Amino acid sequence: MNARPIQTITLITDFGLQDGHVGAMKGVIRSIAPHVEIVDISHYIEPQDIRHGGFVLMTAYPYWPPDTIHVIVVDPGVGTRRRAIAVQTPRGTFIAPDNGVLSYVLAHQEMTQAVQLTNPDYWHHPASPVFHGRDIFAPTAAYLALGTHIRELGQVIQPDALVILPVPQPKRHPDGQITAHIQHIDRFGNCTTDLPGTWLEDAPHWQIEVQGQQFAQVHQTFGQVPLGNPVLLVDSTGFLCVAVRNGNAAQTLDLQIGTLVRLWPKQEPT
Amino acid sequence: MNARPIQTITLITDFGLQDGHVGAMKGVIRSIAPHVEIVDISHYIEPQDIRHGGFVLMTAYPYWPPDTIHVIVVDPGVGTRRRAIAVQTPRGTFIAPDNGVLSYVLAHQEMTQAVQLTNPDYWHHPASPVFHGRDIFAPTAAYLALGTHIRELGQVIQPDALVILPVPQPKRHPDGQITAHIQHIDRFGNCTTDLPGTWLEDAPHWQIEVQGQQFAQVHQTFGQVPLGNPVLLVDSTGFLCVAVRNGNAAQTLDLQIGTLVRLWPKQEPT
Amino acid sequence: MNARPIQTITLITDFGLQDGHVGAMKGVIRSIAPHVEIVDISHYIEPQDIRHGGFVLMTAYPYWPPDTIHVIVVDPGVGTRRRAIAVQTPRGTFIAPDNGVLSYVLAHQEMTQAVQLTNPDYWHHPASPVFHGRDIFAPTAAYLALGTHIRELGQVIQPDALVILPVPQPKRHPDGQITAHIQHIDRFGNCTTDLPGTWLEDAPHWQIEVQGQQFAQVHQTFGQVPLGNPVLLVDSTGFLCVAVRNGNAAQTLDLQIGTLVRLWPKQEPT
Repeated sequence: MNARPIQTITLITDFGLQDGHVGAMKGVIRSIAPHVEIVDISHYIEPQDIRHGGFVLMTAYPYWPPDTIHVIVVDPGVGTRRRAIAVQTPRGTFIAPDNGVLSYVLAHQEMTQAVQLTNPDYWHHPASPVFHGRDIFAPTAAYLALGTHIRELGQVIQPDALVILPVPQPKRHPDGQITAHIQHIDRFGNCTTDLPGTWLEDAPHWQIEVQGQQFAQVHQTFGQVPLGNPVLLVDSTGFLCVAVRNGNAAQTLDLQIGTLVRLWPKQEPT
Repeated sequence: MNARPIQTITLITDFGLQDGHVGAMKGVIRSIAPHVEIVDISHYIEPQDIRHGGFVLMTAYPYWPPDTIHVIVVDPGVGTRRRAIAVQTPRGTFIAPDNGVLSYVLAHQEMTQAVQLTNPDYWHHPASPVFHGRDIFAPTAAYLALGTHIRELGQVIQPDALVILPVPQPKRHPDGQITAHIQHIDRFGNCTTDLPGTWLEDAPHWQIEVQGQQFAQVHQTFGQVPLGNPVLLVDSTGFLCVAVRNGNAAQTLDLQIGTLVRLWPKQEPT
Repeated sequence: MNARPIQTITLITDFGLQDGHVGAMKGVIRSIAPHVEIVDISHYIEPQDIRHGGFVLMTAYPYWPPDTIHVIVVDPGVGTRRRAIAVQTPRGTFIAPDNGVLSYVLAHQEMTQAVQLTNPDYWHHPASPVFHGRDIFAPTAAYLALGTHIRELGQVIQPDALVILPVPQPKRHPDGQITAHIQHIDRFGNCTTDLPGTWLEDAPHWQIEVQGQQFAQVHQTFGQVPLGNPVLLVDSTGFLCVAVRNGNAAQTLDLQIGTLVRLWPKQEPT
């Protein structure tokens, strides 16, 4: 292998793959930056679901090299006054609408620079008012990959001026109880809560209730319960997760985004 | 970055991604041309829907570099007498069955060369009579990427011998009325008509009717109407589009491919 | 083009594309081996369906260069005692859980080396007990692409110690009858049996019965029967296939995985 530095652009959109939208974005990028690598992360974000896009980004970006450029287009406000932005952090550069889709990232990463994409020199023209993915976000990513400095892309924005959505948070109550919520359901029906696994270190054991179902234990892995049984574990995203071994927890236990999960500390396992 | 010229092959198929068909095609390409870039545009064309494939190609290819090789496999006639072809234009080279899937491209691009893929030296063997995507189209693209001249691939075809499907067209009536039709519905339920936005320049204002719904205005973008409201605008493909802001127009307004759209010019907005 | 050797890693998973799982795996690979090419074969294996994954792999890997590294993550036993393995063959290197997903490959390819992935130096840390795709399989593939010798990855396994699932097989009966079964249904509803096309050479003609439907002939291609008619042919995977021309055989003929297909040799076509 040679030592060619490869600049990578990843894509997260809600465009699906039955239309030409993603193909047009990729073409714009490759027309500007022919040597860039384009890698699909997901094009199946639920249509216009900013939280879904933000969560998927959060679970993928930490595994990428810090010089990666991530483009996230979940953009229900395209053509309104919502800003288009590029945000630099020590763990990657993010190009997206300023609608909160970066909230999960910015809860963990320091911003080193943020700009509004106001300089039309770095857009694709004519720029459609309804497809900034193709005409603003994609070319911006390509120019950054070519070495354009982020400050050239437009006006600097102060970090506190960005739209930040409240990231789902569990809550510690005075009596020691914790309440958490399902925040994501994956293809297998595994239900990830908003409770970081590290919170479980507060007590040696927990009693946990989800939709009336009681759990006396958090396991390490699926294989510790019989096939078809519900199981609680800390999943690969680092959060407490409600699963069914080789089954679909969302269907079996009737769980949805927002479903309440309650935890009580206890000294002894039941 | 170095200056390595990268040859790119894009793929549009109706194979979906739950089977090995696409993976086999990519393997054939990379076995012949290890340095080529393969980029997915769509594998979710509706099964055997030539018009859908042609439309998606039309909305994506203009954004790619002219030296891109586009492979389009929507091929209900595989194994019949339909020809396999390669067509060169100033805006890209297209490899496809000769079934009309290139009609949208050829409505806008001049053909500089067209050949029938009759030279088995450039096929993968043994060639299955039911999977020309893997055994004829994919290797042809790879050999072109390696520098093979298109004339080596087979017999020259006269442009007027290609199968061309009538591309949906709006119609101007003697009384000034225009009739158009929905020609594509995307993942969001946005319904693209066959009316080029430029036709709207014929009159300062239009009265427009779709499924009994009246529109007195064409907007620039979704954000100019309240959430959940229907809106007409020229979309990113350049055609008039029927949408619902942050909603699904196809479902809300009961629109389908072919649904009639009627427009009357008027001097004053209502 | 230059002569840069490109190391390719292909991915087959059941993760789907609405989550960040695949994006995290790709990031891990590119963080370790920035120059490697990552190519998607399928992320839509039916959840936890080992046979489906094995079949898709079987239909794709033969078309790839022998130095390709194939990663297959269909892993219902993650976190149990099932082993993680890397298997070298003359036709590619395969990284997967040791759950039988490689059975189809190993029915045709000789193993030159098999190791259990026990050396944590080649894992991503912290390694989640429930996502070996990201933390064991992906980094293993990346290190192999960088030139790590397979023996460094862990303990050698004897070939006969691997988990091998019985690959579906047709059966020759004493009276000359053959019984076979549907083993895969693709996006078009084409139903691939487990009968290799070569078995049909045993007799000049066959009478074939599927779900009460009689076939007096095996055709070469779809186009030999009228539109909408059922047709038997040897498909692109080399197996006998039950199809409907420009239709969906699985739906029309009510076929499922496992449906019986019976064949009788005969001297004359009916």
